[in-house]
Amino acid sequence: MTDAARTRAPAPAPYVLGVDIGGTNLNVGVVPFEGGRPLVFLSEPTEAHRGAKYVVDRVIEMVRQAIREVAGPDPAAARRAFAGIGIGAPGPLDRATGTVISTPNLGWRNFPLRDLIANAADLPATLDNDANAATYGEWWLGAGRGAKVLVGLTLGTGIGGGIVFDGELYHGVSDAAAEIGHMTIDSTGRKCKCGNYGCLEQYASGPAIAARAIEGLEAGARSILPDLVADIHQITAQTVFEAVVKGDPYAAEIMKETARFLGAGVASLVNLLNPDRIVIAGGVTRAGDHLFLPLRDEVRRRAFRVAAEACQIVPAELGPHAGVVGAVACFKKETYGSL
Amino acid sequence: MTDAARTRAPAPAPYVLGVDIGGTNLNVGVVPFEGGRPLVFLSEPTEAHRGAKYVVDRVIEMVRQAIREVAGPDPAAARRAFAGIGIGAPGPLDRATGTVISTPNLGWRNFPLRDLIANAADLPATLDNDANAATYGEWWLGAGRGAKVLVGLTLGTGIGGGIVFDGELYHGVSDAAAEIGHMTIDSTGRKCKCGNYGCLEQYASGPAIAARAIEGLEAGARSILPDLVADIHQITAQTVFEAVVKGDPYAAEIMKETARFLGAGVASLVNLLNPDRIVIAGGVTRAGDHLFLPLRDEVRRRAFRVAAEACQIVPAELGPHAGVVGAVACFKKETYGSL
Repeated sequence: MTDAARTRAPAPAPYVLGVDIGGTNLNVGVVPFEGGRPLVFLSEPTEAHRGAKYVVDRVIEMVRQAIREVAGPDPAAARRAFAGIGIGAPGPLDRATGTVISTPNLGWRNFPLRDLIANAADLPATLDNDANAATYGEWWLGAGRGAKVLVGLTLGTGIGGGIVFDGELYHGVSDAAAEIGHMTIDSTGRKCKCGNYGCLEQYASGPAIAARAIEGLEAGARSILPDLVADIHQITAQTVFEAVVKGDPYAAEIMKETARFLGAGVASLVNLLNPDRIVIAGGVTRAGDHLFLPLRDEVRRRAFRVAAEACQIVPAELGPHAGVVGAVACFKKETYGSL
Repeated sequence: MTDAARTRAPAPAPYVLGVDIGGTNLNVGVVPFEGGRPLVFLSEPTEAHRGAKYVVDRVIEMVRQAIREVAGPDPAAARRAFAGIGIGAPGPLDRATGTVISTPNLGWRNFPLRDLIANAADLPATLDNDANAATYGEWWLGAGRGAKVLVGLTLGTGIGGGIVFDGELYHGVSDAAAEIGHMTIDSTGRKCKCGNYGCLEQYASGPAIAARAIEGLEAGARSILPDLVADIHQITAQTVFEAVVKGDPYAAEIMKETARFLGAGVASLVNLLNPDRIVIAGGVTRAGDHLFLPLRDEVRRRAFRVAAEACQIVPAELGPHAGVVGAVACFKKETYGSL
């Protein structure tokens, strides 16, 4: 193969595979090349405790299954059906080499994830950060469509982030940008597992919301929350959300407090990046107006008026598909230069 | 004049005027078109209390004086010598119309600053934020040269900021980006005059450093600081710096504390933007290693390793000329598309 052939982009094909490797779930989807919801969407628990090899073997099996469901068992048919594979994985990572530098949760170190999957599927692949990919998915086909400057936050086990400037994902100089969950909102506050203190993630991630709720109950707060679980230590952000919907004032207060912490971080983003849209994803956003109304109020109180007025703060639209759709968007952009 | 003539860039000429309007000083300089230190540099106290008209009339007089010093009294000679005028002023402002939206310090509201100066000098002009301009000046000819992603901070009466991506100043969607002094480092902390709580500016600006030093002295701290002033309420960041140089342990502790607060904000910038360089300007940076060594330590402790390792944190190089040189850079970039 000549160098020219090596660097030429693969021919477009009807479909692109998206792979979204998270701490909780492994998702693999088949997305139309021109964009759209996944035709095939496979999701399994990650089971990170079973080790790095177990996880990647299962991802490869899911990729093969998704290919078979669309193109059948013939490898030539698969190559005609699929342009390639976009992969989103937790960072830090090196996009140029397709290597995950380290992920404590998954136990990977300098792990050539991209090429392992590409070789197993005999398709070209690209690798990007999972939260970047999810944000890019929302920009392409979700709540971020048309935004000139988009910031995405995913409130989950941690808080992931992504930034899109003029249709391009922003990566920084060493693929480490947009760690929004690790902006400090209280420099002498809660210790974060990243080593820093007072990271936004320690106040507004799912586990942080649950921890604050449990702390208050242990201090004597009255709430229906204990009735929804066998043991108050089983309370999750989801439980808090259920209690809010049932009209529990204590849970509503926890949600408002979440909005205040999140608002401090979002206001910093607004003052720094002056975006026209911020898209927030993750289970917590199912609280809807219980979260978004106090959040928008808090941002208006804290941020500069001209910047706050320019920025819409909205829930994500792609739900569990964002990572897969976004990984496909990353593949297309990196391979063909446009979406 | 045809539309084509209107939109055509003015011919390059040997010099560009730079105007830097700050809360403390008005600076006007003549900079070679190809770049370099100002040939002429005029500086006067702003005296904002004397009103908006007084300030702008004096800026215009300084511009005329700078033009005369280079080109003599003949208007035709002036037009041959100068390509135009770059203006930096406190925001928020609208670059497209050249209007300052509001500056509480200077009493301007929807003030057509750019055209007032352009018409008075009979030269084309551009308007940008003063802290953006200073950062762009450092990128063009100072400590930011060659950086791919540059973040600039100016520690003065407030904390101003600027961001340069791939040689382009970043403005956000409504010219309000890079308000680094108003990132929250303590969401329940000191009230800021912007309305927010715990802004970086409340901990690491010149007045904030002085205020912390005075608070400690009033609480009984021992220091040579009171010997350097008639009344401890005259202590400024500059006084703290002098005491550090004289070996005062209390002043050194105040400087270290400043580095810790500043480090929390800078680490957030590193985690969010993953820049290769951060340039810090302002009088406080004369503390040199007394500030930069603990600052770099703090950032390494707080930020992700892969991002912290990619980022140099260095003092600015252009000193009081940064604003003027940067305003010229903004004019050139906006008018000709490159520097």
